[in-house]
Amino acid sequence: MEILIKNGKIINAGGSFKGDVLVRNGKIAAIGKGLDGKTASKTIDAGGLYVLPGAIDAHTHLEMAMGKTFSADGYESGTRAAACGGTTTVFDYTLQEKGKPMLEEIADRNRLAEPAACVDYAFHGGISEVNEARLNEVAEMAKQGFPSIKAYMTYAFGLDDKALFELLQRAAKEKVLITVHAESHGIVEANREEFKKEGLTDVWYHYLSRPEIAEEEADIRAVTLARAAGAPIYIVHLGNEAGAKYIAKARAEGIPVYAETCPHYLAFTNEVFKRPDGIRFICSPPMKGKESQIALWEGVSRGVIDTIATDHCPAQTFEKDWGKKDFTLAPCGVMGIENMYPYMLNAANKGMISFERAVALCSYNVAKIFGCDTKGAIEPGLDADIVLYDPKKEFTITVDKMHSNIDYTIYEGMKLKGYPVLTMSRGAVVYEDGEFKGEAGYGRLLRRKVSCAYDKY
Amino acid sequence: MEILIKNGKIINAGGSFKGDVLVRNGKIAAIGKGLDGKTASKTIDAGGLYVLPGAIDAHTHLEMAMGKTFSADGYESGTRAAACGGTTTVFDYTLQEKGKPMLEEIADRNRLAEPAACVDYAFHGGISEVNEARLNEVAEMAKQGFPSIKAYMTYAFGLDDKALFELLQRAAKEKVLITVHAESHGIVEANREEFKKEGLTDVWYHYLSRPEIAEEEADIRAVTLARAAGAPIYIVHLGNEAGAKYIAKARAEGIPVYAETCPHYLAFTNEVFKRPDGIRFICSPPMKGKESQIALWEGVSRGVIDTIATDHCPAQTFEKDWGKKDFTLAPCGVMGIENMYPYMLNAANKGMISFERAVALCSYNVAKIFGCDTKGAIEPGLDADIVLYDPKKEFTITVDKMHSNIDYTIYEGMKLKGYPVLTMSRGAVVYEDGEFKGEAGYGRLLRRKVSCAYDKY
Amino acid sequence: MEILIKNGKIINAGGSFKGDVLVRNGKIAAIGKGLDGKTASKTIDAGGLYVLPGAIDAHTHLEMAMGKTFSADGYESGTRAAACGGTTTVFDYTLQEKGKPMLEEIADRNRLAEPAACVDYAFHGGISEVNEARLNEVAEMAKQGFPSIKAYMTYAFGLDDKALFELLQRAAKEKVLITVHAESHGIVEANREEFKKEGLTDVWYHYLSRPEIAEEEADIRAVTLARAAGAPIYIVHLGNEAGAKYIAKARAEGIPVYAETCPHYLAFTNEVFKRPDGIRFICSPPMKGKESQIALWEGVSRGVIDTIATDHCPAQTFEKDWGKKDFTLAPCGVMGIENMYPYMLNAANKGMISFERAVALCSYNVAKIFGCDTKGAIEPGLDADIVLYDPKKEFTITVDKMHSNIDYTIYEGMKLKGYPVLTMSRGAVVYEDGEFKGEAGYGRLLRRKVSCAYDKY
Amino acid sequence: MEILIKNGKIINAGGSFKGDVLVRNGKIAAIGKGLDGKTASKTIDAGGLYVLPGAIDAHTHLEMAMGKTFSADGYESGTRAAACGGTTTVFDYTLQEKGKPMLEEIADRNRLAEPAACVDYAFHGGISEVNEARLNEVAEMAKQGFPSIKAYMTYAFGLDDKALFELLQRAAKEKVLITVHAESHGIVEANREEFKKEGLTDVWYHYLSRPEIAEEEADIRAVTLARAAGAPIYIVHLGNEAGAKYIAKARAEGIPVYAETCPHYLAFTNEVFKRPDGIRFICSPPMKGKESQIALWEGVSRGVIDTIATDHCPAQTFEKDWGKKDFTLAPCGVMGIENMYPYMLNAANKGMISFERAVALCSYNVAKIFGCDTKGAIEPGLDADIVLYDPKKEFTITVDKMHSNIDYTIYEGMKLKGYPVLTMSRGAVVYEDGEFKGEAGYGRLLRRKVSCAYDKY
Repeated sequence: MEILIKNGKIINAGGSFKGDVLVRNGKIAAIGKGLDGKTASKTIDAGGLYVLPGAIDAHTHLEMAMGKTFSADGYESGTRAAACGGTTTVFDYTLQEKGKPMLEEIADRNRLAEPAACVDYAFHGGISEVNEARLNEVAEMAKQGFPSIKAYMTYAFGLDDKALFELLQRAAKEKVLITVHAESHGIVEANREEFKKEGLTDVWYHYLSRPEIAEEEADIRAVTLARAAGAPIYIVHLGNEAGAKYIAKARAEGIPVYAETCPHYLAFTNEVFKRPDGIRFICSPPMKGKESQIALWEGVSRGVIDTIATDHCPAQTFEKDWGKKDFTLAPCGVMGIENMYPYMLNAANKGMISFERAVALCSYNVAKIFGCDTKGAIEPGLDADIVLYDPKKEFTITVDKMHSNIDYTIYEGMKLKGYPVLTMSRGAVVYEDGEFKGEAGYGRLLRRKVSCAYDKY
Repeated sequence: MEILIKNGKIINAGGSFKGDVLVRNGKIAAIGKGLDGKTASKTIDAGGLYVLPGAIDAHTHLEMAMGKTFSADGYESGTRAAACGGTTTVFDYTLQEKGKPMLEEIADRNRLAEPAACVDYAFHGGISEVNEARLNEVAEMAKQGFPSIKAYMTYAFGLDDKALFELLQRAAKEKVLITVHAESHGIVEANREEFKKEGLTDVWYHYLSRPEIAEEEADIRAVTLARAAGAPIYIVHLGNEAGAKYIAKARAEGIPVYAETCPHYLAFTNEVFKRPDGIRFICSPPMKGKESQIALWEGVSRGVIDTIATDHCPAQTFEKDWGKKDFTLAPCGVMGIENMYPYMLNAANKGMISFERAVALCSYNVAKIFGCDTKGAIEPGLDADIVLYDPKKEFTITVDKMHSNIDYTIYEGMKLKGYPVLTMSRGAVVYEDGEFKGEAGYGRLLRRKVSCAYDKY
Repeated sequence: MEILIKNGKIINAGGSFKGDVLVRNGKIAAIGKGLDGKTASKTIDAGGLYVLPGAIDAHTHLEMAMGKTFSADGYESGTRAAACGGTTTVFDYTLQEKGKPMLEEIADRNRLAEPAACVDYAFHGGISEVNEARLNEVAEMAKQGFPSIKAYMTYAFGLDDKALFELLQRAAKEKVLITVHAESHGIVEANREEFKKEGLTDVWYHYLSRPEIAEEEADIRAVTLARAAGAPIYIVHLGNEAGAKYIAKARAEGIPVYAETCPHYLAFTNEVFKRPDGIRFICSPPMKGKESQIALWEGVSRGVIDTIATDHCPAQTFEKDWGKKDFTLAPCGVMGIENMYPYMLNAANKGMISFERAVALCSYNVAKIFGCDTKGAIEPGLDADIVLYDPKKEFTITVDKMHSNIDYTIYEGMKLKGYPVLTMSRGAVVYEDGEFKGEAGYGRLLRRKVSCAYDKY
Repeated sequence: MEILIKNGKIINAGGSFKGDVLVRNGKIAAIGKGLDGKTASKTIDAGGLYVLPGAIDAHTHLEMAMGKTFSADGYESGTRAAACGGTTTVFDYTLQEKGKPMLEEIADRNRLAEPAACVDYAFHGGISEVNEARLNEVAEMAKQGFPSIKAYMTYAFGLDDKALFELLQRAAKEKVLITVHAESHGIVEANREEFKKEGLTDVWYHYLSRPEIAEEEADIRAVTLARAAGAPIYIVHLGNEAGAKYIAKARAEGIPVYAETCPHYLAFTNEVFKRPDGIRFICSPPMKGKESQIALWEGVSRGVIDTIATDHCPAQTFEKDWGKKDFTLAPCGVMGIENMYPYMLNAANKGMISFERAVALCSYNVAKIFGCDTKGAIEPGLDADIVLYDPKKEFTITVDKMHSNIDYTIYEGMKLKGYPVLTMSRGAVVYEDGEFKGEAGYGRLLRRKVSCAYDKY
């Protein structure tokens, strides 16, 4: 089956041109000028539109247990929302119950995801203990197509330095990429205890308990341990200026560190915690001061930030409100799965970054870093994960226009210039003109290759 | 007229796939899997070969006056050699005689180049004085398609800090990219005078008169003046470690500095000046110590180096020998125009860098930085400047196999794994299997757009 | 002749204690607890007072030709004011007329100073050209007790990089310390020309023509050239933040760079140029933004600043006013010779720095860096250059209380906590309770030893 | 009782002069030229000798439990050896048994020390747990004269990041200085486990288990946590290059970090672990590679190193030999208490550093940093802790000339130029011409004031 997308502006990370894309059997068959569409069963006129690779959201938590509740989007609603925001691949983070193999956790999650996913999905491994059994599983993870594992440096299931170092050593050997949640457990826990003791529990103290230096310290330590282990490392949801500068310097010295940030660190500062609905913005790490926001935007435009992901992990209003009097009781996490690509493309459309850079951050770089060799570009042979974007369309984010399960959005009222008008997943239209057109169970589990972190440059 | 190149591995800076390239009227019309070649008048089977964008050599000096002689390759022999080495675009540097407009210099050079060039060529402006007339010409340079101007920080025609700063300010305003030859005039001249006075004139003193810190000082100053002027800057032929580290740090802080190095700084160290034929290697800046060579390779693989160019400016043996007893009498410059792409692709083929990175350094990045919007990739709409590369072919560089005018090569005896087997310039084969197939006068003057240095990222 | 100063708090750079000082024949004979004063012809009760080494002002321009006028204090009024501010040694900077030996310039200035000086004085050499004659004089300068030479990096008599590099090389060989006025000639001249052309000549443009980066660029270059030459270097009147940070980093890497700042960079920012009497504050480098002021105070308290000096070079009101409509016509320079020690001791008295640090900055460090082996501490064997300081005395600076020739003071109205009540020069009281008690011609020329810059640490 | 020391060269950290010292009742009463000694009951002719403040060894472990044995020097033999090496104050580190107050530990140790000490001694607190009880004790520690507490970042009794951060916060509040043993527990333990498992247990693996980066990581983390807590910090026994550079940079940015190194890191590299008697050199952190040794010497001469101390903690030969087949079984620690001052003065005498710098490192800086307001200089009012040093005396270190209990010395055969010939502790001669002249129980417990880390500079 062939589809011809004609006369669009085709934009890849490395450049753009006006022309046509021929899709055959769910793959991109050709790109060119004046492609012959005689054999195509369908022709889409993309005149005036941009033709982009679908976004890859490398960081979500769907249907994840969070204390007495679960994150409010499951695999169906989450991937449905993704599709409607131009995201055609979703990476979910598994956690690891102590004693249970990482691959079993993935299998368990996959049982949930398989019948539900509306677009393709992948799993990062999760690890909460380092011992012979877990270390030996690292090679198997790579072999089975899950060559990335996340370690937390805080929380009850966080790894201490010894465990993280041993994991990094093994990861380097097996060409697996370790991603880290970098916040100083020591600083955060000390602050939380002190605030609790002193009754300082309103939302603002969420930020104060996890201040800039709590993130910076862990960023530095993560990079140093990775250096000690001879391993590359990927910092998830980078949110602070000093850490960004440290990573930039480390890279200038040739150390392979990757950094991800999220739209909510670009769109907001810690000022949100002073809003009446501040509790909705609780996430870890929290948004920081203005300086950090500026530094992250510089990283987005100039390079220290490699990828944008959402850390999508929302809770409903009534759940968030559990923390109104004591921030420690609120489920931690915000939404974004439907907003990432539109938000970043809006930035490009308003001239803050180039469209090529937006595509690199949201799709191409993610594919390279996480070994998705069938995604990330409009290129012959790759999956036909394609977004048509109308740069002229005006769009205001409101909760009723979103496609996830959540009863609010932190982006309520945000005006965007330009918006996706069609999303194609492996050649099938899953979203068009505001409507979800896909179906649960269409999405396939993505098994991946080795990260470019282990490539020659 | 259509040509179909079938079944090659198509390699761009951003990725590669196995497939076909359709060339129509000298342009790339389409790339794809199983492209229909029915309308093609010619089909080339590229099975087992790599299909690469032609290289762009951003730095040559053809037929340039050098004291009592001229650089030994003119526009014909230089571009012939380029074609035979897979280079399909040659940037020549013009000089500026005081009082004469830069555009007149370009026109003069173009009168020589037009009937002679075997592949497409472009000119950088040259400037040896900064005054109202020259500054006012900057905007016109951009308008006429020459949005890059070179300033020297040493030599009789070098600019002092005031002139360079004023030039950078105007360049920033007119979106012209300034390229600089960065060596400290003060340190170099002081050393040369001292050595002359003490009779220290053998070849080794060429290096000692232009030591690492002479380059580092000028690198730092160039970057600082550019920062003061709010202008991007491009450092030509970077050859020292400390400068590379400084530039890496500056970039980590968000300052737009680009750096070029040359194959001879990657292939050799200052040890060559101790060889019996050391005089042949005299060029400025000279090759430095082992640490610098290592640092440049790191820059090549990790990113501080953006482009590879040749600074091709050779003299014949009898001319070089003028300096045997007094290094200051030797014409300054080495060859490389035919060796750049094979040398860098050899590095990729041996696993030191990826082929994508080699293409980025030798073609894609050059096109972006110097505004060549019709070159730099295998992409629909661009010129069909294509190299077929046989990764299995063994090649030993010897002077008799080279296509330039020079009676020796500094790369004599170097063994390469893999070599170009065909070069196409706008669809026409100009080199095949060791033979030049093009003709003088085929190459066209390339007028360029604004540099990506002035783009959003 | 012996004098006993009893029961003061004796404060040196390295520590303090309550006790007595015995002065014998103009030298400090002993310090101790309960010193026997039977042989003393005079006893001073210093109860409640601090006993400090006299300050050493390493940077003044007395009676210096400035276009159509002279700096407004000569050797008599300048050193008289110094004595009344607790400064017992004054370093004057000589300039060098091209072709004239530095030592002749010193001899000429000494003919003016010898009959006039009220306290001891020393000369730095000045150099405006580098050639065989000047370079050969460097050794002689050291031999005759003038082991420090100042080079300007801007102005008509400034040195270019080659000259400065050659001077630094020779200085390293002869153990002479080069001090530099570091502002980028290129940036400053370009700005001045542009502003002149555009008629932008009010006082604020004095600052804009010499912005932060004009100083930073020259600081970096001075340090780099010194490193290339293997010489230590001393930056006079450091006034910008980025330069301070660069120097701090260079020192962290072991490069011997010294930095001086002046009270007017600590007391004021560029805001003064917006005042109605802004013209009075014109000096080069100009005071910079708030960030620089803060950075300099950090340097003062934490170490990147080694010395405080005044760059005392004032002009009378009517002369300053020549520049009211065109800042380039105003004589450049401000006063401070009588204010330095009181200002810095006031900072100590208010708790911003320790008294030990104030003594280090204003006296001890200066003595070490410029080889004054008879000054800088209350220590047996050294000259009895002693200041009694009343930490309780309230003092408001007004022009009528000052002892120099100038008809205004930029410090008018500044309130100080604590003030010198007595100054002793080689055992003779030269100032007491607001009154000058010395005499012209008492001061002696100080010949100096090698700088600690050439010592082992 | 008065003693007059005549005609010596009196050397303080801040300068030196030839003259006399008058001692009265165990204190320095006066220093001067031609001091009147009529009232002195004893006159010592110090002609040709240097008169120095006694050294302060800020880091020893006497009679400390080490697994199944004790460190081999007790308070008597340790302080006897100290006296014979010119060290007149010894700081012993207490450990803290969980649940037991720090002050009780000090009291316990003092019961051992009081009857035994031959020179004055002080205690640092030790802490192995952080809880309300311990934190509340911090203020009391300062009040009772023990304003310094050591935390380990490794070993079973090491603190984790939370505990260290909380301790630093409280220390900042109470003006107590935290000293840290900085090695990454994670890296070290991971290495040890791996080596054990693989049977890699010879002495060389002691070094490999605690490589450069294990120290660097902890140095960086210690500085970052101190910065987060707003506290100064003191790194004990710094032994690696990268850590030294990091600390230098941190200080250049104004962060109050102090660094101590030990003679064994200056005298030896990790090469010693390859010697037949390598087991004797086992200590933690271990000596590192040549680059670290060079960097530490630079720090000693240029400033990143503030103090020299010994970490004196030796074991007898038969005890060390427990580890011959398995390095983990050897007691950890080397000697040095008698060698520190002679070793550093030898370095000065041979021109590597100045004598002033040697005095600063071994005495003056230690006194300032640890609040010993009666020690550290030859200054009126301070304790008469004085060393006479003969710069001409030749001395070869051999175990039989040492005064401690140990049956070997790692410095065996080292030749020194210059040696102490007399040590005075509060006016009493405790060592003369190779013989110990003091007595057990003479030394007094030193209660201390606040560290200069909390002073204005």
